[in-house]
Amino acid sequence: MTYCVALLLDQGMVFIADTRTNAGLDDVSTFRKLNIIEKPGDRILALAAAGNLSMSQSVVSLIMEGIEDPETGRVDRLENAPTLFKAVQFVGRAVRQVRAEYRPGLAEADVRFNVSFLFGGQIGAEPMRLFMVYAAGNFIECGQDAPFLQIGEHKYGKPILDRAVTYDMDLYDALKIGLISIDSTMRSNLGVGLPVDLAVMRRDALATEVTHRIEAGEIYFNDLRERWSTALRAAHMAIPRPPYGPKR
Amino acid sequence: MTYCVALLLDQGMVFIADTRTNAGLDDVSTFRKLNIIEKPGDRILALAAAGNLSMSQSVVSLIMEGIEDPETGRVDRLENAPTLFKAVQFVGRAVRQVRAEYRPGLAEADVRFNVSFLFGGQIGAEPMRLFMVYAAGNFIECGQDAPFLQIGEHKYGKPILDRAVTYDMDLYDALKIGLISIDSTMRSNLGVGLPVDLAVMRRDALATEVTHRIEAGEIYFNDLRERWSTALRAAHMAIPRPPYGPKR
Repeated sequence: MTYCVALLLDQGMVFIADTRTNAGLDDVSTFRKLNIIEKPGDRILALAAAGNLSMSQSVVSLIMEGIEDPETGRVDRLENAPTLFKAVQFVGRAVRQVRAEYRPGLAEADVRFNVSFLFGGQIGAEPMRLFMVYAAGNFIECGQDAPFLQIGEHKYGKPILDRAVTYDMDLYDALKIGLISIDSTMRSNLGVGLPVDLAVMRRDALATEVTHRIEAGEIYFNDLRERWSTALRAAHMAIPRPPYGPKR
Repeated sequence: MTYCVALLLDQGMVFIADTRTNAGLDDVSTFRKLNIIEKPGDRILALAAAGNLSMSQSVVSLIMEGIEDPETGRVDRLENAPTLFKAVQFVGRAVRQVRAEYRPGLAEADVRFNVSFLFGGQIGAEPMRLFMVYAAGNFIECGQDAPFLQIGEHKYGKPILDRAVTYDMDLYDALKIGLISIDSTMRSNLGVGLPVDLAVMRRDALATEVTHRIEAGEIYFNDLRERWSTALRAAHMAIPRPPYGPKR
Protein backbone atom coordinates (compact mmCIF):
# COMPACT_ATOMS: atom_id res chain seq x y z
CA MET A 1 0.00 0.00 0.00
CA THR A 2 0.85 3.65 -0.21
CA TYR A 3 -0.33 6.76 1.48
CA CYS A 4 0.54 10.21 0.15
CA VAL A 5 -0.94 13.52 1.19
CA ALA A 6 -0.29 17.01 -0.16
CA LEU A 7 -1.47 20.26 1.40
CA LEU A 8 -1.88 23.56 -0.44
CA LEU A 9 -1.77 26.51 1.92
CA ASP A 10 -1.50 30.26 1.82
CA GLN A 11 2.15 30.00 2.89
CA GLY A 12 3.08 27.17 0.56
CA MET A 13 2.82 23.46 -0.03
CA VAL A 14 3.64 20.26 1.84
CA PHE A 15 4.07 16.80 0.31
CA ILE A 16 4.34 13.66 2.46
CA ALA A 17 4.65 10.10 1.16
CA ASP A 18 5.40 6.77 2.77
CA THR A 19 7.83 4.40 1.05
CA ARG A 20 6.39 0.96 1.69
CA THR A 21 5.41 -1.21 -1.22
CA ASN A 22 4.14 -4.71 -1.12
CA ALA A 23 3.28 -7.42 -3.58
CA GLY A 24 1.51 -9.57 -1.04
CA LEU A 25 2.20 -9.37 2.65
CA ASP A 26 5.35 -11.47 2.38
CA ASP A 27 6.97 -9.22 -0.20
CA VAL A 28 7.39 -5.82 1.41
CA SER A 29 9.98 -3.34 0.27
CA THR A 30 10.93 0.34 0.35
CA PHE A 31 10.73 2.65 -2.67
CA ARG A 32 10.83 6.38 -2.97
CA LYS A 33 7.40 7.60 -4.08
CA LEU A 34 8.06 11.33 -3.76
CA ASN A 35 9.92 13.01 -6.59
CA ILE A 36 11.07 16.62 -6.65
CA ILE A 37 11.81 18.54 -9.83
CA GLU A 38 13.63 21.70 -8.85
CA LYS A 39 15.07 24.57 -10.89
CA PRO A 40 15.74 27.07 -8.14
CA GLY A 41 14.42 30.51 -8.99
CA ASP A 42 12.43 29.14 -11.93
CA ARG A 43 10.20 26.31 -10.71
CA ILE A 44 9.62 23.77 -7.99
CA LEU A 45 7.49 20.72 -8.69
CA ALA A 46 6.64 17.64 -6.65
CA LEU A 47 5.17 14.35 -7.84
CA ALA A 48 3.95 11.58 -5.51
CA ALA A 49 2.78 8.24 -6.84
CA ALA A 50 0.42 5.51 -5.65
CA GLY A 51 -0.84 2.30 -7.18
CA ASN A 52 0.88 -0.57 -8.93
CA LEU A 53 4.61 0.12 -8.63
CA SER A 54 5.53 -1.17 -12.11
CA MET A 55 3.01 1.21 -13.62
CA SER A 56 3.75 4.26 -11.48
CA GLN A 57 7.51 3.84 -11.91
CA SER A 58 7.12 3.69 -15.67
CA VAL A 59 5.06 6.87 -15.63
CA VAL A 60 7.61 8.64 -13.44
CA SER A 61 10.51 7.46 -15.63
CA LEU A 62 8.74 8.65 -18.75
CA ILE A 63 8.06 12.01 -17.12
CA MET A 64 11.71 12.36 -16.11
CA GLU A 65 12.99 11.31 -19.54
CA GLY A 66 10.59 13.55 -21.40
CA ILE A 67 8.16 12.78 -24.21
CA GLU A 68 9.13 13.55 -27.78
CA ASP A 69 6.56 15.35 -29.87
CA PRO A 70 6.41 13.16 -33.03
CA GLU A 71 5.70 16.19 -35.27
CA THR A 72 8.17 18.76 -34.06
CA GLY A 73 10.74 16.35 -32.61
CA ARG A 74 10.85 18.57 -29.54
CA VAL A 75 11.15 16.74 -26.21
CA ASP A 76 8.57 17.95 -23.69
CA ARG A 77 9.69 17.89 -20.06
CA LEU A 78 8.43 19.20 -16.76
CA GLU A 79 11.53 21.40 -16.78
CA ASN A 80 10.30 23.33 -19.81
CA ALA A 81 6.53 23.33 -19.25
CA PRO A 82 5.46 26.97 -19.51
CA THR A 83 2.64 26.74 -16.95
CA LEU A 84 1.47 24.38 -14.20
CA PHE A 85 -1.61 23.54 -16.20
CA LYS A 86 0.58 22.50 -19.13
CA ALA A 87 2.75 20.56 -16.68
CA VAL A 88 -0.14 18.55 -15.23
CA GLN A 89 -1.44 17.91 -18.75
CA PHE A 90 2.00 16.53 -19.53
CA VAL A 91 1.78 14.21 -16.49
CA GLY A 92 -1.63 13.05 -17.74
CA ARG A 93 -0.16 12.42 -21.19
CA ALA A 94 2.59 10.27 -19.66
CA VAL A 95 -0.04 8.27 -17.77
CA ARG A 96 -2.01 7.65 -20.98
CA GLN A 97 1.12 6.73 -22.93
CA VAL A 98 2.19 4.09 -20.37
CA ARG A 99 -1.37 2.87 -20.14
CA ALA A 100 -1.59 2.43 -23.92
CA GLU A 101 1.69 0.53 -23.97
CA TYR A 102 0.70 -1.81 -21.13
CA ARG A 103 -2.92 -2.29 -22.15
CA PRO A 104 -2.63 -5.52 -24.21
CA GLY A 105 -0.49 -7.27 -21.60
CA LEU A 106 -2.68 -6.14 -18.72
CA ALA A 107 -5.84 -7.23 -20.52
CA GLU A 108 -4.32 -10.66 -21.05
CA ALA A 109 -3.38 -10.95 -17.37
CA ASP A 110 -6.70 -9.40 -16.29
CA VAL A 111 -4.88 -6.72 -14.28
CA ARG A 112 -6.28 -3.22 -13.91
CA PHE A 113 -4.15 -0.20 -14.77
CA ASN A 114 -4.01 1.26 -11.32
CA VAL A 115 -2.05 4.44 -10.62
CA SER A 116 -2.69 7.88 -9.23
CA PHE A 117 -0.51 10.89 -8.60
CA LEU A 118 -0.35 14.05 -6.58
CA PHE A 119 1.35 16.74 -8.57
CA GLY A 120 1.91 20.38 -7.80
CA GLY A 121 4.24 23.25 -7.19
CA GLN A 122 4.95 26.63 -8.65
CA ILE A 123 6.33 27.91 -11.96
CA GLY A 124 7.67 31.46 -12.11
CA ALA A 125 5.18 34.12 -11.09
CA GLU A 126 2.18 31.77 -11.40
CA PRO A 127 0.24 30.84 -8.27
CA MET A 128 1.01 27.52 -6.56
CA ARG A 129 -1.30 24.76 -7.73
CA LEU A 130 -1.94 21.20 -6.65
CA PHE A 131 -3.54 18.40 -8.68
CA MET A 132 -4.56 14.77 -8.39
CA VAL A 133 -4.02 12.80 -11.59
CA TYR A 134 -6.11 9.66 -12.14
CA ALA A 135 -5.33 6.45 -14.00
CA ALA A 136 -6.98 7.77 -17.15
CA GLY A 137 -4.70 10.81 -17.19
CA ASN A 138 -7.51 13.15 -16.19
CA PHE A 139 -7.07 15.31 -13.10
CA ILE A 140 -8.70 17.53 -10.49
CA GLU A 141 -7.33 20.62 -8.81
CA CYS A 142 -7.16 21.28 -5.08
CA GLY A 143 -9.06 24.32 -3.79
CA GLN A 144 -8.91 26.41 -0.63
CA ASP A 145 -12.01 24.95 1.06
CA ALA A 146 -10.51 21.49 1.56
CA PRO A 147 -6.88 22.41 0.98
CA PHE A 148 -5.44 18.91 0.69
CA LEU A 149 -5.46 15.90 -1.60
CA GLN A 150 -4.67 12.28 -0.80
CA ILE A 151 -3.87 9.15 -2.81
CA GLY A 152 -3.56 5.51 -1.83
CA GLU A 153 -4.79 4.34 1.59
CA HIS A 154 -6.43 7.65 2.38
CA LYS A 155 -9.38 7.00 4.69
CA TYR A 156 -7.67 6.35 8.02
CA GLY A 157 -5.78 9.62 7.77
CA LYS A 158 -8.64 11.79 6.49
CA PRO A 159 -10.59 12.59 9.70
CA ILE A 160 -7.75 14.61 11.24
CA LEU A 161 -7.24 16.50 7.96
CA ASP A 162 -10.98 17.20 7.71
CA ARG A 163 -10.92 18.69 11.18
CA ALA A 164 -7.61 20.45 11.46
CA VAL A 165 -6.37 21.75 8.11
CA THR A 166 -7.18 25.27 7.03
CA TYR A 167 -5.77 27.23 4.13
CA ASP A 168 -4.37 29.99 6.32
CA MET A 169 -2.57 27.79 8.86
CA ASP A 170 1.18 27.87 9.44
CA LEU A 171 3.13 25.79 6.95
CA TYR A 172 4.86 23.73 9.65
CA ASP A 173 1.64 23.21 11.58
CA ALA A 174 0.25 21.79 8.35
CA LEU A 175 3.28 19.51 8.07
CA LYS A 176 2.61 18.39 11.65
CA ILE A 177 -1.06 17.60 10.87
CA GLY A 178 0.08 15.72 7.78
CA LEU A 179 2.43 13.62 9.93
CA ILE A 180 -0.42 12.88 12.37
CA SER A 181 -2.48 11.76 9.37
CA ILE A 182 0.40 9.49 8.31
CA ASP A 183 0.65 8.12 11.85
CA SER A 184 -3.08 7.27 11.95
CA THR A 185 -2.73 5.45 8.65
CA MET A 186 0.34 3.50 9.74
CA ARG A 187 -1.45 2.37 12.89
CA SER A 188 -4.47 1.02 11.03
CA ASN A 189 -2.75 -0.40 7.93
CA LEU A 190 0.58 -2.20 8.20
CA GLY A 191 0.99 -1.76 4.45
CA VAL A 192 1.85 1.90 5.07
CA GLY A 193 5.14 2.42 6.89
CA LEU A 194 8.37 4.26 7.54
CA PRO A 195 10.54 5.69 6.15
CA VAL A 196 8.41 8.69 5.18
CA ASP A 197 9.58 11.32 2.71
CA LEU A 198 8.47 14.90 2.97
CA ALA A 199 8.99 18.19 1.20
CA VAL A 200 8.05 21.72 2.20
CA MET A 201 7.85 24.41 -0.46
CA ARG A 202 7.27 28.01 0.58
CA ARG A 203 5.19 30.13 -1.77
CA ASP A 204 7.27 32.22 -4.19
CA ALA A 205 10.55 30.68 -2.99
CA LEU A 206 10.72 28.54 -6.16
CA ALA A 207 12.86 26.01 -4.28
CA THR A 208 12.29 23.41 -1.59
CA GLU A 209 12.61 24.77 1.92
CA VAL A 210 12.88 21.30 3.44
CA THR A 211 13.30 17.83 2.04
CA HIS A 212 13.59 15.17 4.69
CA ARG A 213 13.29 11.43 5.19
CA ILE A 214 11.86 10.25 8.52
CA GLU A 215 13.53 6.96 9.39
CA ALA A 216 12.31 4.48 11.99
CA GLY A 217 13.35 5.63 15.45
CA GLU A 218 13.53 9.33 14.65
CA ILE A 219 13.10 11.22 17.89
CA TYR A 220 10.71 13.95 16.72
CA PHE A 221 8.35 11.59 14.91
CA ASN A 222 8.33 9.09 17.79
CA ASP A 223 7.56 11.93 20.16
CA LEU A 224 4.75 13.18 17.92
CA ARG A 225 3.20 9.69 17.81
CA GLU A 226 3.42 9.31 21.56
CA ARG A 227 2.09 12.77 22.36
CA TRP A 228 -0.78 12.27 19.95
CA SER A 229 -1.71 8.94 21.52
CA THR A 230 -1.53 10.36 25.02
CA ALA A 231 -3.56 13.42 24.07
CA LEU A 232 -6.25 11.32 22.37
CA ARG A 233 -6.53 9.14 25.45
CA ALA A 234 -6.85 12.21 27.67
CA ALA A 235 -9.37 13.68 25.22
CA HIS A 236 -11.77 10.77 25.27
CA MET A 237 -11.32 10.24 29.00
CA ALA A 238 -12.37 13.85 29.57
CA ILE A 239 -15.68 13.39 27.75
CA PRO A 240 -18.47 12.42 30.16
CA ARG A 241 -19.91 8.93 29.85
CA PRO A 242 -23.15 8.63 27.88
CA PRO A 243 -26.17 9.37 30.08
CA TYR A 244 -28.23 6.55 28.54
CA GLY A 245 -28.78 4.65 31.76
CA PRO A 246 -30.39 1.29 32.39
CA LYS A 247 -34.05 1.17 31.41
CA ARG A 248 -36.29 1.89 34.35
CA MET B 1 -23.75 4.03 3.08
CA THR B 2 -23.83 2.43 6.47
CA TYR B 3 -21.51 2.29 9.42
CA CYS B 4 -22.04 -0.22 12.22
CA VAL B 5 -19.64 -1.11 15.02
CA ALA B 6 -19.97 -3.70 17.77
CA LEU B 7 -17.68 -4.03 20.80
CA LEU B 8 -17.22 -7.17 22.85
CA LEU B 9 -15.95 -6.41 26.33
CA ASP B 10 -15.45 -8.09 29.64
CA GLN B 11 -18.51 -6.30 31.00
CA GLY B 12 -20.73 -6.87 27.98
CA MET B 13 -21.45 -5.79 24.46
CA VAL B 14 -22.25 -2.57 22.61
CA PHE B 15 -23.86 -2.26 19.17
CA ILE B 16 -24.05 1.04 17.32
CA ALA B 17 -25.51 1.55 13.83
CA ASP B 18 -26.37 4.59 11.77
CA THR B 19 -29.65 4.65 9.85
CA ARG B 20 -28.84 6.43 6.63
CA THR B 21 -29.34 4.68 3.32
CA ASN B 22 -28.90 6.06 -0.11
CA ALA B 23 -29.48 4.93 -3.63
CA GLY B 24 -27.45 7.71 -5.14
CA LEU B 25 -26.84 11.01 -3.41
CA ASP B 26 -30.28 12.36 -4.32
CA ASP B 27 -32.15 9.45 -2.77
CA VAL B 28 -31.31 9.42 0.92
CA SER B 29 -33.54 7.87 3.53
CA THR B 30 -33.61 6.49 7.08
CA PHE B 31 -33.93 2.79 7.91
CA ARG B 32 -33.33 0.92 11.09
CA LYS B 33 -30.29 -1.32 10.63
CA LEU B 34 -29.99 -2.56 14.21
CA ASN B 35 -32.32 -5.37 15.25
CA ILE B 36 -32.64 -6.78 18.75
CA ILE B 37 -33.97 -10.26 19.50
CA GLU B 38 -34.68 -10.40 23.22
CA LYS B 39 -36.10 -13.16 25.43
CA PRO B 40 -35.27 -11.72 28.85
CA GLY B 41 -33.65 -14.27 31.10
CA ASP B 42 -33.05 -16.63 28.18
CA ARG B 43 -31.18 -14.80 25.44
CA ILE B 44 -30.28 -11.44 24.03
CA LEU B 45 -29.16 -11.13 20.41
CA ALA B 46 -28.35 -8.17 18.19
CA LEU B 47 -28.06 -8.05 14.41
CA ALA B 48 -26.74 -5.06 12.46
CA ALA B 49 -26.81 -4.98 8.67
CA ALA B 50 -24.80 -3.24 5.96
CA GLY B 51 -24.81 -3.41 2.19
CA ASN B 52 -27.55 -3.29 -0.39
CA LEU B 53 -30.76 -2.55 1.51
CA SER B 54 -33.00 -4.81 -0.58
CA MET B 55 -30.70 -7.74 0.14
CA SER B 56 -30.03 -7.07 3.82
CA GLN B 57 -33.73 -6.44 4.52
CA SER B 58 -34.64 -9.75 2.88
CA VAL B 59 -32.08 -11.55 5.01
CA VAL B 60 -33.34 -9.88 8.19
CA SER B 61 -36.97 -10.64 7.30
CA LEU B 62 -36.13 -14.28 6.62
CA ILE B 63 -34.28 -14.50 9.93
CA MET B 64 -37.22 -12.98 11.80
CA GLU B 65 -39.76 -15.21 10.05
CA GLY B 66 -37.72 -18.36 10.54
CA ILE B 67 -36.55 -20.97 8.05
CA GLU B 68 -38.48 -24.19 7.70
CA ASP B 69 -36.45 -27.36 7.68
CA PRO B 70 -37.81 -29.19 4.59
CA GLU B 71 -37.29 -32.60 6.18
CA THR B 72 -38.61 -32.16 9.68
CA GLY B 73 -41.02 -29.31 8.95
CA ARG B 74 -39.65 -27.59 12.03
CA VAL B 75 -39.17 -23.83 11.74
CA ASP B 76 -35.70 -22.72 12.88
CA ARG B 77 -35.55 -19.30 14.52
CA LEU B 78 -33.02 -17.29 16.46
CA GLU B 79 -35.42 -17.61 19.38
CA ASN B 80 -34.88 -21.36 19.55
CA ALA B 81 -31.22 -21.69 18.51
CA PRO B 82 -29.57 -23.75 21.25
CA THR B 83 -26.17 -22.02 21.07
CA LEU B 84 -24.67 -18.83 19.65
CA PHE B 85 -22.66 -20.84 17.17
CA LYS B 86 -25.85 -22.47 15.89
CA ALA B 87 -27.45 -19.03 15.81
CA VAL B 88 -24.73 -17.48 13.65
CA GLN B 89 -24.82 -20.51 11.38
CA PHE B 90 -28.53 -19.86 11.02
CA VAL B 91 -27.81 -16.24 10.02
CA GLY B 92 -25.32 -17.54 7.46
CA ARG B 93 -27.95 -19.94 6.11
CA ALA B 94 -30.42 -17.08 5.71
CA VAL B 95 -27.79 -15.10 3.79
CA ARG B 96 -27.15 -18.03 1.44
CA GLN B 97 -30.87 -18.65 0.95
CA VAL B 98 -31.55 -15.05 -0.07
CA ARG B 99 -28.44 -15.06 -2.22
CA ALA B 100 -29.58 -18.20 -4.06
CA GLU B 101 -33.00 -16.71 -4.66
CA TYR B 102 -31.65 -13.41 -5.99
CA ARG B 103 -28.75 -14.85 -7.96
CA PRO B 104 -30.34 -15.14 -11.42
CA GLY B 105 -31.83 -11.64 -11.31
CA LEU B 106 -28.63 -10.10 -9.99
CA ALA B 107 -26.53 -11.86 -12.63
CA GLU B 108 -28.82 -10.47 -15.32
CA ALA B 109 -28.55 -6.95 -13.93
CA ASP B 110 -24.81 -7.40 -13.26
CA VAL B 111 -25.27 -6.45 -9.60
CA ARG B 112 -23.13 -7.97 -6.86
CA PHE B 113 -24.76 -9.60 -3.83
CA ASN B 114 -23.46 -7.21 -1.27
CA VAL B 115 -24.38 -7.61 2.41
CA SER B 116 -22.61 -8.05 5.71
CA PHE B 117 -23.79 -8.38 9.28
CA LEU B 118 -22.62 -7.97 12.83
CA PHE B 119 -24.28 -10.55 14.99
CA GLY B 120 -23.79 -11.39 18.63
CA GLY B 121 -25.15 -11.63 22.12
CA GLN B 122 -25.60 -14.27 24.76
CA ILE B 123 -27.69 -17.42 25.11
CA GLY B 124 -28.25 -18.83 28.59
CA ALA B 125 -25.05 -19.64 30.47
CA GLU B 126 -22.88 -19.52 27.33
CA PRO B 127 -20.24 -16.78 27.02
CA MET B 128 -21.09 -13.69 25.02
CA ARG B 129 -19.90 -13.94 21.43
CA LEU B 130 -19.69 -11.54 18.51
CA PHE B 131 -19.47 -12.41 14.80
CA MET B 132 -19.19 -10.77 11.41
CA VAL B 133 -21.15 -12.57 8.69
CA TYR B 134 -20.05 -12.10 5.08
CA ALA B 135 -22.06 -12.12 1.86
CA ALA B 136 -21.30 -15.82 1.31
CA GLY B 137 -22.79 -16.72 4.69
CA ASN B 138 -19.36 -17.46 6.18
CA PHE B 139 -18.32 -15.63 9.34
CA ILE B 140 -15.49 -14.70 11.69
CA GLU B 141 -15.56 -14.30 15.45
CA CYS B 142 -14.35 -11.32 17.45
CA GLY B 143 -11.55 -11.95 19.94
CA GLN B 144 -10.20 -10.09 22.95
CA ASP B 145 -7.10 -8.63 21.31
CA ALA B 146 -9.03 -6.34 18.99
CA PRO B 147 -12.38 -6.48 20.74
CA PHE B 148 -14.53 -4.87 18.06
CA LEU B 149 -15.89 -5.54 14.59
CA GLN B 150 -17.10 -3.08 11.98
CA ILE B 151 -19.16 -3.27 8.79
CA GLY B 152 -19.88 -0.72 6.07
CA GLU B 153 -17.88 2.49 5.88
CA HIS B 154 -15.41 1.37 8.53
CA LYS B 155 -12.07 3.05 7.85
CA TYR B 156 -12.68 6.62 9.06
CA GLY B 157 -13.82 5.33 12.44
CA LYS B 158 -11.16 2.66 12.92
CA PRO B 159 -8.14 4.69 14.14
CA ILE B 160 -9.84 5.72 17.40
CA LEU B 161 -10.99 2.13 18.02
CA ASP B 162 -7.48 0.83 17.32
CA ARG B 163 -6.08 3.21 19.91
CA ALA B 164 -8.68 3.35 22.63
CA VAL B 165 -10.64 0.13 22.94
CA THR B 166 -9.52 -2.56 25.36
CA TYR B 167 -11.39 -5.65 26.45
CA ASP B 168 -11.38 -4.66 30.12
CA MET B 169 -12.65 -1.12 29.73
CA ASP B 170 -15.91 0.15 31.22
CA LEU B 171 -18.97 -0.67 29.13
CA TYR B 172 -20.10 2.95 28.89
CA ASP B 173 -16.59 4.17 28.10
CA ALA B 174 -16.67 1.70 25.23
CA LEU B 175 -20.02 3.11 24.12
CA LYS B 176 -18.45 6.57 24.24
CA ILE B 177 -15.50 5.48 22.06
CA GLY B 178 -17.97 3.86 19.68
CA LEU B 179 -19.84 7.15 19.39
CA ILE B 180 -16.58 9.01 18.71
CA SER B 181 -15.91 6.47 15.97
CA ILE B 182 -19.38 7.16 14.53
CA ASP B 183 -18.73 10.90 14.72
CA SER B 184 -15.43 10.58 12.81
CA THR B 185 -17.21 8.59 10.12
CA MET B 186 -20.10 11.05 9.82
CA ARG B 187 -17.66 13.93 9.41
CA SER B 188 -15.77 12.28 6.56
CA ASN B 189 -18.66 10.57 4.75
CA LEU B 190 -22.01 12.30 4.35
CA GLY B 191 -23.54 8.93 3.49
CA VAL B 192 -23.36 8.02 7.20
CA GLY B 193 -25.68 10.06 9.40
CA LEU B 194 -28.07 10.49 12.28
CA PRO B 195 -30.23 9.09 13.73
CA VAL B 196 -27.95 6.49 15.30
CA ASP B 197 -29.30 3.40 17.08
CA LEU B 198 -27.44 1.82 19.94
CA ALA B 199 -27.83 -1.08 22.31
CA VAL B 200 -25.89 -1.98 25.45
CA MET B 201 -26.03 -5.55 26.78
CA ARG B 202 -24.42 -6.34 30.09
CA ARG B 203 -22.83 -9.77 30.39
CA ASP B 204 -25.10 -12.37 32.01
CA ALA B 205 -28.06 -9.96 32.18
CA LEU B 206 -29.70 -11.71 29.22
CA ALA B 207 -31.57 -8.52 28.39
CA THR B 208 -30.70 -5.14 26.93
CA GLU B 209 -29.57 -2.64 29.50
CA VAL B 210 -30.04 0.30 27.12
CA THR B 211 -31.59 0.71 23.71
CA HIS B 212 -31.54 4.25 22.47
CA ARG B 213 -31.87 6.29 19.30
CA ILE B 214 -29.71 9.41 19.02
CA GLU B 215 -31.65 11.98 17.01
CA ALA B 216 -30.18 15.09 15.40
CA GLY B 217 -29.79 17.82 18.00
CA GLU B 218 -29.45 15.51 21.01
CA ILE B 219 -27.59 17.40 23.69
CA TYR B 220 -25.21 14.66 24.87
CA PHE B 221 -24.11 13.63 21.38
CA ASN B 222 -23.68 17.26 20.25
CA ASP B 223 -21.60 17.89 23.34
CA LEU B 224 -19.47 14.79 22.69
CA ARG B 225 -18.82 15.94 19.12
CA GLU B 226 -17.88 19.41 20.21
CA ARG B 227 -15.67 18.30 23.09
CA TRP B 228 -13.90 15.81 20.84
CA SER B 229 -13.23 18.46 18.20
CA THR B 230 -11.96 20.92 20.78
CA ALA B 231 -9.75 18.32 22.43
CA LEU B 232 -8.28 17.20 19.10
CA ARG B 233 -7.48 20.79 18.23
CA ALA B 234 -5.81 21.29 21.60
CA ALA B 235 -3.97 17.98 21.17
CA HIS B 236 -2.34 18.82 17.87
CA MET B 237 -1.68 22.40 18.91
CA ALA B 238 0.24 21.07 21.92
CA ILE B 239 2.60 19.00 19.78
CA PRO B 240 5.76 20.95 18.90
CA ARG B 241 6.24 21.94 15.27
CA PRO B 242 8.54 19.70 13.23
CA PRO B 243 12.20 20.66 13.68
CA TYR B 244 13.00 20.12 9.99
CA GLY B 245 14.15 23.68 9.34
CA PRO B 246 15.16 25.38 6.10
CA LYS B 247 18.17 23.80 4.48
CA ARG B 248 21.39 25.51 5.51
